[in-house]
This record gives sequence, structure tokens and C-alpha cells, in this order.
Amino acid sequence: MRFGILTIGNELTSGRTQDANSSFIAACINRQGWEVAVMMSLGDDKWAIERGLKHMIDISDAVIVTGGLGPTADDITTASIADALGLALYTDEAALLHIQTLFRNYGLRWTENNAKQAIFPEGAYPICNPVGSAWSFYLKIGKKIIVVTPGVPQEVRRIIPEQVIPLLEREFIKGKHHVESRTIKLFGIAEAAVDQALADINWDQMDVGVGFYPQFPETHVVVTAKRTSSEETKKIIQMAEDEINKRLGEYVFAYDDETLEGVVASLLTKRSLTLSVAESCTGGLIADRLTDVSGSSAFLERGVIAYSNLSKKELLGIPDAVLKEFGAVSEQTAVLMAKGVKKLAQTDIGLATTGIAGPTGGTESKPVGTVFVALADDRETFCRHFIFRWDRRRVKIIASQAALMMLNRRLSGESLHER
Amino acid sequence: MRFGILTIGNELTSGRTQDANSSFIAACINRQGWEVAVMMSLGDDKWAIERGLKHMIDISDAVIVTGGLGPTADDITTASIADALGLALYTDEAALLHIQTLFRNYGLRWTENNAKQAIFPEGAYPICNPVGSAWSFYLKIGKKIIVVTPGVPQEVRRIIPEQVIPLLEREFIKGKHHVESRTIKLFGIAEAAVDQALADINWDQMDVGVGFYPQFPETHVVVTAKRTSSEETKKIIQMAEDEINKRLGEYVFAYDDETLEGVVASLLTKRSLTLSVAESCTGGLIADRLTDVSGSSAFLERGVIAYSNLSKKELLGIPDAVLKEFGAVSEQTAVLMAKGVKKLAQTDIGLATTGIAGPTGGTESKPVGTVFVALADDRETFCRHFIFRWDRRRVKIIASQAALMMLNRRLSGESLHER
Repeated sequence: MRFGILTIGNELTSGRTQDANSSFIAACINRQGWEVAVMMSLGDDKWAIERGLKHMIDISDAVIVTGGLGPTADDITTASIADALGLALYTDEAALLHIQTLFRNYGLRWTENNAKQAIFPEGAYPICNPVGSAWSFYLKIGKKIIVVTPGVPQEVRRIIPEQVIPLLEREFIKGKHHVESRTIKLFGIAEAAVDQALADINWDQMDVGVGFYPQFPETHVVVTAKRTSSEETKKIIQMAEDEINKRLGEYVFAYDDETLEGVVASLLTKRSLTLSVAESCTGGLIADRLTDVSGSSAFLERGVIAYSNLSKKELLGIPDAVLKEFGAVSEQTAVLMAKGVKKLAQTDIGLATTGIAGPTGGTESKPVGTVFVALADDRETFCRHFIFRWDRRRVKIIASQAALMMLNRRLSGESLHER
Repeated sequence: MRFGILTIGNELTSGRTQDANSSFIAACINRQGWEVAVMMSLGDDKWAIERGLKHMIDISDAVIVTGGLGPTADDITTASIADALGLALYTDEAALLHIQTLFRNYGLRWTENNAKQAIFPEGAYPICNPVGSAWSFYLKIGKKIIVVTPGVPQEVRRIIPEQVIPLLEREFIKGKHHVESRTIKLFGIAEAAVDQALADINWDQMDVGVGFYPQFPETHVVVTAKRTSSEETKKIIQMAEDEINKRLGEYVFAYDDETLEGVVASLLTKRSLTLSVAESCTGGLIADRLTDVSGSSAFLERGVIAYSNLSKKELLGIPDAVLKEFGAVSEQTAVLMAKGVKKLAQTDIGLATTGIAGPTGGTESKPVGTVFVALADDRETFCRHFIFRWDRRRVKIIASQAALMMLNRRLSGESLHER
């Protein structure tokens, strides 16, 4: 089953609005074991809609169209589709009555242009809208199906799973296959290196699809399998996951919807450990990420953004002499920041960053992007030196990731000295 | 001039990733006075790419293609385009050398699959990538132009305006009309209320397009005008902007690409004022936003994320008695946090937040979403109480926005008591 998704509206082709419907609908379709062959967005332009629709019918078994069903003159989807297929238009009296009743119940003033929302191409099956006034409809043209729904994202989020997918399930045999996918999240290794590390695996023979998706600063590997039984699909996904972990396990920190901060938070909570954070170049981003996790107050005692030398002295106990001799951006300072915040906050672990996020402030010996990340616990203190060649925001993001990854390794019992 | 935009990648047709490139590219094209006839997304599927590209060339003067230029085997854009147009492939030695040098400079290990990024269809003009390793290229097929760029959004955001638009300007006559638009950014008022406040303005008579775009937690109003001279276009945009400011000026904090943190940072810097921040429920997000601005070390003395009572006492000097009597989430605590951080950091202004971000921790008198924002300077201390009915992340975002907006009002000389 190959699907086309067509979204219509000038707000899309002008670039004013980002199309949120297509990816939502595509996810619904993929979950059924069906495939999306093409997604298209067009303006409220009759010529383009007619040509585009024909192209999409040509290469898909079914086309889902959203948008352009409103009462105003610029909404021309229904008329354009009818013209493209050589169909006349008719008013559905039941739909009209329903829309008029809706207006009365909501105390809205009825204007004649609203009657347009009860007009459909001949042969269409109208579908009542559970959340708005514009009705959807579907058409069968030979073996092909065209479904047309309003384009308001909140309406699409109800109409597609509640009405359109069940309708399509009746019309088409449900994908014979169970589709499962697993996202494996890595940090600290480039996409091409991931690819090469996995090059010896014969994915085709396993009949597993594999994709690489850089999501700065992470690399996500998505494996997808399609089998006739759900069990078999899960088994093959697990095999693929094991193969990847065997080769790249040290870079893997999370799966599917998990985040690095979520993984770290649950490890801290599970082991009843407390954490304090001292940030310079990351400017609060580490604490921000950790406090996005509900329940973070159980482990996060404090965060300190020590921008000035006064604050480094007062909040972290770093002696002036160290700042003078080695500088605020140095291994010595990073280590003392981690130790200092741990001691003053009386926590099990102290985590610290100091660096030059740029774009100014770099020197020859400490260029922009220089970052020191330090971790102190009761056993030892560890510091790592990076040079990140990115813009200011991305230096902050990747430095916060490196710090959380160091913490993750420590909590997982991996040695920090290894790499 | 009619354009097609084609984005390629299985992450799009699977619904895993929302396409952010198409709307960005469409906005760039519309600003030139050109038109987008069709936007299409396809998977990494040779058959679909060949058919889709032909359809797009058919109905547009130029097609911009992004995505599928990576080094891995699933990236097949270049080969598919070459096949669709009946062109052979060649390796561009200059591009290859450039990519190899890039790898060496960044200390990345070279793997042979990266050489794929220097392969182009015969007759193509390679374009060096200023921010990544995959090169772009363009092709002239008769009077039509095809431009192909990498799909990484950060790269697209540089390559399209810096390289592709100038290239297209050379190839095509610029649109006869000057198109200008102005984004006016508001906070603290809902979209429908903005719409209503502006309902008496006759936009049609002014021949100005106006759109409302909620960008949580902000509302953006975009006015667009098209005139034959650049001066006239600018004048009409200014008129529209003035009308909006007359009605809604108190909510307006920035224009176009400006951010709230950027506006606040430049006010602080200009007036040589220093700031310290004490955050509880925002968890570092205020400091994170402020430190995204280059040069923030000039005004930000420190940030404190005071999650525990110990840290509130030690880092902000809040007496146990206050925490006991009024609680950590209270006007009294918020005010003492702002005063405390100001005093200890010896800054001109102290800014503080305390609240319940949720989803747990709410009580009847202090429900989830309760937030106190306080500001202290040498003249006075001000506190405001909010209840934000959002999820955890959005409570943090809107609370940080409310705090920065309070600071912005203070720095702009507006009274904080007014509202």
C-alpha cells in the first residue's frame, strides 16, 4: 500500500507556516505497515492542485488531502479536486443541517459562505467532523481512494486516527506485516564512522532497514523490521540492536524516546545519589536539561553559573592564585569547580564545565571551542579537554552533552579513563 | 518565476522528522518576489525521486533539492537525479581534496565512503559547503535550473541565503516587486486577542498582508507588502508597524530576528548594568538564554539554581524561618531570592523565579504552574504571581519569558506596577 499526502494552503508555500500535518499523518500510516510514497504541499492554486493530485494518484494507491476546506473564497480544495476528476458538485443536505445546528448551538452567527462546507464532489462520502465545522469526505476512483480532511492541525490529530485510518483499514487489507522500529542514540562518534563500524553487518540478509540520522549533537541509528508476526519482528529488531551494541556500545546512551538527561536522572534517583553542577561556558544549560526531568529536585542539590571570578571564589571556593596562574578556562579550574561545588553542596557528585563558547575570547593556546569538563565524586576526580568547532549555541549544547555523558559513564560503572 | 522545493529522506516519509527545510526555503524565495509552485518530500527511493523530480521540473522554472547527500549507502539523491536526467557521474578532484583537508583539520578519521560527497552529475557546478562536508551543486537543463544542497537544517539555513539565492538572482531576473515583511514579536497576549485588537485596521485597503503566528510562548505578527519600489514597500510596512504598536505596544518586545534575551542583553550592556539570576523552577533556563548572547559575561555576574533549602540559605541568604513560614514557592521567598542574589553578587539587578513546574508537587493553594517572578534593583523590589497551565517544559519556558520580560520593562523605563 503506497500513500500520498497532499497539504494545501498558501501559508505553506509562502513559508509562513511549517507543515505539521504531513509528518503526523505519515507516522499514522507507517504504524499500519503501509508506506508513504510522496508528500506534497501546494498553495490555494487550482492549476497546481489539479496537476499535483494527478501525479499523486498516479504513483499511490490512496491520497490523503488536508486543507483548503474553509468557508472563505480562497479555500478551493473541493472544487479543484472535483475538476481534476471531472466530477460535478452537490450540496449534502444532512451535512448542511448539521453545520447549521452546530452554529446555533455555539451561538455563532450563520453567514451564507458557511454553506460551502456542505458541498462535495458527486460520488463522495461525507464524513462528519467531530471537532470543527468543515466536513471531510472520501472518494473511490477505480481502485484508488482519495480522502479529504480539514487542515487545522488539532482537527487532523483527531480525524486521521479516529476516522481516516479505520476507513482505510476497511478499504485496504491491513499491511500484512508488523512493523517495528528502534532508535539507538549515540554520542561522541560521527555518522560516517557509525556507518563504517556497521558496514560488515549484512542488513539486507537480515531484511532490516537501517538509517542514520544526525540530531546534533547526537547520531541516531534507526532499525526497522517488517515481519508477519509481532514476535518475530521484535526478535529481529533485538538482534539488530545487539549487533550495534556489540560494535558501538560505548557510544550508546539511550533508546527511542529516552533522553540523555532522563537516563542520567533515573540512574541518580535509583541509586539515591545527589548531584551539584558548576557551569561556566554552558551557562545553565546542564541544569536546565536536568530540571526538565520531573523529580529532579530529588537529586539536584544546586547549580551554580559562575561567570565572574568573584562567583568562582564565593560559590566554589576557587583561590585567586589558581585563576591567575592557570586561567578560568583550564583543567585546574575545572577540577576545582567540580570539587568545590561537590564540597559546598555536600553532594555525592560534582560536575563542572569551563570553556570559551565564542565567537570571541579565543587565544592561540585556548581557541574558541576549548572546553574542560570535570567530574568529582568520593573516589576520584576526572577532567577531559575538548575543542569543539561550532558556533556559540552548539558549543554550549555539545559541552553540556559531553558533561552529561561523562556523568552517565560514571553512573553506569564505566571507567572514565578508558577513552 | 515558479519554484519547486524537493526534500529527500526516509525520516520525512516515515513521519519521524518534521520537515523544517521546506518552509525556510519557501520564505527565502518569497522574499525575492518569486513564487513556490510545489513542495514535495520523498523517501530515499530512486523510483519516486526520478518521477517526482520530472513532475517538479515540468511545473516550475527551478527546483531546489535538499537531503540525501550524506556519505552512507542510503543517501542516493545525486545518483537518482543523474539517472532522471540521463547524466553520468564524475568525481570532482577539487571538492575531494577540500573534503579530505576538512577531515584532517578537524582531526576526523577519513573513511572511503566520504569520497562519495565529491561525486556530481556531469555538467554540474559544485558549490563548496561553508559549514559541513557535503558539497552542493547546480545544473542547468535548458532554461531550467536544479540546485541540490545537503539537508541538515543548520546547513540549509546558511547555504540557501548565502549561496543559492545569490546564484538564482544571477540566473533569473529578480521579481518585479519588492517584497518586504516585518515580524513583530509580542508576549503576554493571546493570538485571538491580538487579532481582535487589530480588527479595525483595513489591511486590504493598505494592501498589506498580515498573519498571526503563535510561537510558544510568543505571538508573532507578520506584515508583508509588495510594491514596485523598495522605498514605497518600506514605507507601507512602517505604517502597518506603527498601527500595531499604537494598539499593542506594551506587549511588543522585539522585531524580526531579535530575541528577548538579545534585547535585554543589549540594554544591559549599553547601560553598563550588571545582573545576577537566582532560579528555582526555571532551573537554569534564564541563565542559559542570556548566555546564548555573545558578550553576556560583561553583564551576567552569576546565576544560581537554588533547588535545595541549603542552597537557598547558602547562596542567597534566605532564612530558614521564611522558608518554613511561607514556603519555598512564595512571594516572600521570591523577593528574598532576588534581593539575596543581588546583594551577594554585588550587581545592579537581581532576578529570581520560584514555582512548581509540575507535573507533581502542586497543592490546592499552590497548584502546578504557580510561579513567582521577582526583580530587585537599587530603587525597589517587585514581584509578580502567575499560574501557567502548561506541561513542565512549557512552564519553564513561559516563566523564563515572564522574568526576562519583567527585566526588559524595567530596563526600558516602563513601570512594573502598571499591569
